[in-house]
Amino acid sequence: MKGVTDTAPDDGSFGDLVVFLDEGVPVPLASAAVNVADLAVTRGDGIFESIGVIDGRFIEFERHLARLAHSAAMLDLPEPDLEAFEAAARRGVAAHRPEPELLVKLLYSRGIEGDDVPSGWIQVLTGPDHSAARREGVRVVTLDRGYRHDIAQTSPWLLQGAKTLSYALNKAALREAARRGAEDVIFVSSDDVVLEGPTANVLVRHGDRFRTPRTDLGILAGTTQAAVFDTLDAMGFAAEEALLSPADLASADGLWLLSSGRLIAPVRELDGRPLPVDAPFTTTLLEKSFGLPT
Amino acid sequence: MKGVTDTAPDDGSFGDLVVFLDEGVPVPLASAAVNVADLAVTRGDGIFESIGVIDGRFIEFERHLARLAHSAAMLDLPEPDLEAFEAAARRGVAAHRPEPELLVKLLYSRGIEGDDVPSGWIQVLTGPDHSAARREGVRVVTLDRGYRHDIAQTSPWLLQGAKTLSYALNKAALREAARRGAEDVIFVSSDDVVLEGPTANVLVRHGDRFRTPRTDLGILAGTTQAAVFDTLDAMGFAAEEALLSPADLASADGLWLLSSGRLIAPVRELDGRPLPVDAPFTTTLLEKSFGLPT
Repeated sequence: MKGVTDTAPDDGSFGDLVVFLDEGVPVPLASAAVNVADLAVTRGDGIFESIGVIDGRFIEFERHLARLAHSAAMLDLPEPDLEAFEAAARRGVAAHRPEPELLVKLLYSRGIEGDDVPSGWIQVLTGPDHSAARREGVRVVTLDRGYRHDIAQTSPWLLQGAKTLSYALNKAALREAARRGAEDVIFVSSDDVVLEGPTANVLVRHGDRFRTPRTDLGILAGTTQAAVFDTLDAMGFAAEEALLSPADLASADGLWLLSSGRLIAPVRELDGRPLPVDAPFTTTLLEKSFGLPT
Repeated sequence: MKGVTDTAPDDGSFGDLVVFLDEGVPVPLASAAVNVADLAVTRGDGIFESIGVIDGRFIEFERHLARLAHSAAMLDLPEPDLEAFEAAARRGVAAHRPEPELLVKLLYSRGIEGDDVPSGWIQVLTGPDHSAARREGVRVVTLDRGYRHDIAQTSPWLLQGAKTLSYALNKAALREAARRGAEDVIFVSSDDVVLEGPTANVLVRHGDRFRTPRTDLGILAGTTQAAVFDTLDAMGFAAEEALLSPADLASADGLWLLSSGRLIAPVRELDGRPLPVDAPFTTTLLEKSFGLPT
């Protein structure tokens, strides 16, 4: 990847693109490659973040950078250069053709096996149209995650709570959901505690009380969830972390999956049973938290 | 990767190299790259096999190919073209500079996100010198794997028993072993059943009885273990699959880790307590099973 001169335009003429941190210039996604001996390729040994960008505004950039640093520490990776990641991300978005929604991925790999030099790059991708999921909701199944709810405390080498590139299991869970006629998953611990989705946090409403699973359960601290909690606080609702059971989901007055790309998707069906969907309220949360609809 | 003509030599002039299945010709490892949007890179969403090659002889090639197909099925990947993998591997080894031991990795990825076209390639790598580990043994710690012993039956979406590219956890476990002054790990289920190492199977000896954990425990069916069992059978020993407890390891007359690169490594210390090492017997197994020392 060396030898590229710093002459690429930041003028919105690119489609989906990549910026390698050691180069700093946008390259088209189709021509951006990593060596096959990179541990990201051979071992999924790295971390990532996905950041939503709406009309050019990064959503919760600081919280994503903080989480990247947290994941790096959990994997004993050298501290990532957050300023370089941020600069690459901003340059990448400036170079990309304007779109209502973009998704910026930060990737940080342990690097080529044996070299011990980590590598980082960012991708800027055109966001898919999430409007139907945001408006009408998604069908979700609960699946066993196999671990006790306290596994992050007892067995940190299992990397629960780190956002690693080893996501084969999360993709397998989504295929299992599809087999069951659903589009998404909520994982439950082996001792029946609600955890998170493969790529989302969980938000549950009972009356005026909103709850999300505690982050000491070996789940990711949700950046979208944090933004929504800020909104709920400002609206005067009680919003808190909690230990939740599958029964709490089944009895919910509202259930949502929160993530950086889709942002807020109501759950309209859980394990085949319909759940109430309050579309105007979801719209209010999207507008107050993220300025949507634009 | 396209446009390479089929003129590369198979004459042993290469160092470590890669053969992409869709090209068929060896390329130097340092110049072999995959697109950053390949799901192997972004999600660890693929599978692999590592095959030992001693003096040009592939060790247990058929069993590795069968396991690759098994992993592909578990991940709902299209059936891999095993003949193409085998041809690429043989061509790659022929092109590589002769070494006493080589390691051939087969990699099969789900491919570029959205394209749904899997990609496959093989790597031929110079094997490290494992003689000290084979002769003197390794220090091992047991670590909790977090799952019940029956998880592969109850929750197949957790992919236990598939050899995926999502190995960040296995690498984290090896770092935890290093923190504890050891070189390797034996995972134990949450309900105290011995499973496997991050990259090895377990062999336990009590008297003339040899046992290895059952493959219905969500562990990989060991190719090296199968070869050693063939040898033990031929030598007149009882060799069988079993449910083993950590106490069975602590009381062992001999304990080994079996894997494709290192082949057979005696465990000389388990969780800080010494275990008996029978060096001549290990040498016999290496010789009868794999023709070592060469």
